[in-house]
Amino acid sequence: MTQLNQLDFYQTRINQYLADKLAAYEVNDEKLLSAMQYGLLIGGKRMRPYLSYITGEALGLKLSDVDGIAAALECIHAFSLIHDDLPSMDDDDLRRGQPTCHRAFDEATAILAGDSLQTLAFDILVNHNFSAGVESKRISLIRQLVNASGYQGMCGGQALDISATDKVITLAELEKLHSLKTGALLKASVTMVTEMSNDISTDEKHQLAVYADHIGLAYQVRDDIIDIISSEEELGKPAGSDVSSNKSTYPALLGLQGAQQKADNLYQQALQALATLPYNTDNLAQFATFIIKRAH
Amino acid sequence: MTQLNQLDFYQTRINQYLADKLAAYEVNDEKLLSAMQYGLLIGGKRMRPYLSYITGEALGLKLSDVDGIAAALECIHAFSLIHDDLPSMDDDDLRRGQPTCHRAFDEATAILAGDSLQTLAFDILVNHNFSAGVESKRISLIRQLVNASGYQGMCGGQALDISATDKVITLAELEKLHSLKTGALLKASVTMVTEMSNDISTDEKHQLAVYADHIGLAYQVRDDIIDIISSEEELGKPAGSDVSSNKSTYPALLGLQGAQQKADNLYQQALQALATLPYNTDNLAQFATFIIKRAH
Repeated sequence: MTQLNQLDFYQTRINQYLADKLAAYEVNDEKLLSAMQYGLLIGGKRMRPYLSYITGEALGLKLSDVDGIAAALECIHAFSLIHDDLPSMDDDDLRRGQPTCHRAFDEATAILAGDSLQTLAFDILVNHNFSAGVESKRISLIRQLVNASGYQGMCGGQALDISATDKVITLAELEKLHSLKTGALLKASVTMVTEMSNDISTDEKHQLAVYADHIGLAYQVRDDIIDIISSEEELGKPAGSDVSSNKSTYPALLGLQGAQQKADNLYQQALQALATLPYNTDNLAQFATFIIKRAH
Repeated sequence: MTQLNQLDFYQTRINQYLADKLAAYEVNDEKLLSAMQYGLLIGGKRMRPYLSYITGEALGLKLSDVDGIAAALECIHAFSLIHDDLPSMDDDDLRRGQPTCHRAFDEATAILAGDSLQTLAFDILVNHNFSAGVESKRISLIRQLVNASGYQGMCGGQALDISATDKVITLAELEKLHSLKTGALLKASVTMVTEMSNDISTDEKHQLAVYADHIGLAYQVRDDIIDIISSEEELGKPAGSDVSSNKSTYPALLGLQGAQQKADNLYQQALQALATLPYNTDNLAQFATFIIKRAH
């Protein structure tokens, strides 16, 4: 298993930032605040924050600037998981081996917790104490998060995913779906960080975006593969749940071996994009390796 | 019945702006886009946009600048109605005499439509073509919308409203609930517009915020009264639904006459705040009158 360099360090850092942010809220409704804390702070690999931090590291940016990006992205991610798990969506009882938010609380509270975490993401971007050189980028950072999150991004992808249930869709449709549902936010984890740099060239920005596009898609292909090969015990959610809910997957369209080949190709293309860059991209390369090797 | 000056004009203006904004989206998922259009464009009095426009008028601001504020606020309002109507929340089948979004589509689509409309509100604020003098206010405008919408605002208020169901709460708790659930957004309809002005004094800003606070609360008190005195046919939703779901209301705590007295006092205080201002505030005063006289 590929170990991610300094993963613990960055997980601790982002968890602390997010916990502090919620702790600073004046308590209006205790239950809603608890549900937000539950959805945001209980578990989670923090892949998006990690990706943001190692991108910032490669570019020599201040971690304190990356904090704002990482935290906003994780709030959007947590909001999406809470809503995706709802009975009218994927109807999942477990997430990360724990009861899903609507199971631990109730449905209304889970919906509101998701809603409030979306707002929190924008709260963080608009209020984070960026250093002077980054301040002028605040608007374009918010714009990027908008594009990655709403109808044009993650929410649109989730809708496409629901529409595709019980249907056979083409590979192009499956890629479109995932590029919106999970790809947009993973890509933003890189591109929002490159946006903060005043030194990076347009071409370097582009290559990092290409890297992010490819690992975003590879992440989903690998997810589909894991869903087939993992046991329920390892995964913390019912194995094969995508198959049982009749969702199109890469293994369903390409076969298991074809899907793994697809993941490998995406991996190679991600590494090629990195190879053009004049930075130390070891951790970014390692992250790509982690994505296509991970077992859960 | 008090007629609002130029209400049709402003309704048409904001409807066109919102329709254009959604029409400009590349179609990813047709059903989700239709649900967003249904929730945002079918009916609605456009009270928040109207309030923003007449505030802007009083201050001599450009309508094209106010458009961005009005549209963002209406997106948040529409998102909140879609989610509040869901089976796990108020479980309403009708809204403005039409099937609620989850009835016209389905629950998953309604949840995603609300989610996407929240993002759209920030999309509008971050991308609206403000005039040069307002551009520097973009960040503080987004900050105001964040505070009015999320846990510290509308979502927090909705959670308090749910918590208060089947409970007797105090008048102070009821006011807190409504100041967050409906007051925050109505107040922002005024204060986001005053924020755009470079000429207004701090005291004048404060007086307009006081006006907005009082009409925001009066709006809710009047809503509770209407819920009791209206027939189902007039209202387009089941009359007395707040009583039947055991929600605390002003009439329940103060009696019908006491609630009307409360609304009248708030109305007088709103007018007093306006009286201190060196602007033509006739339409704002008329709006206050409309709020406490309206029958639905």
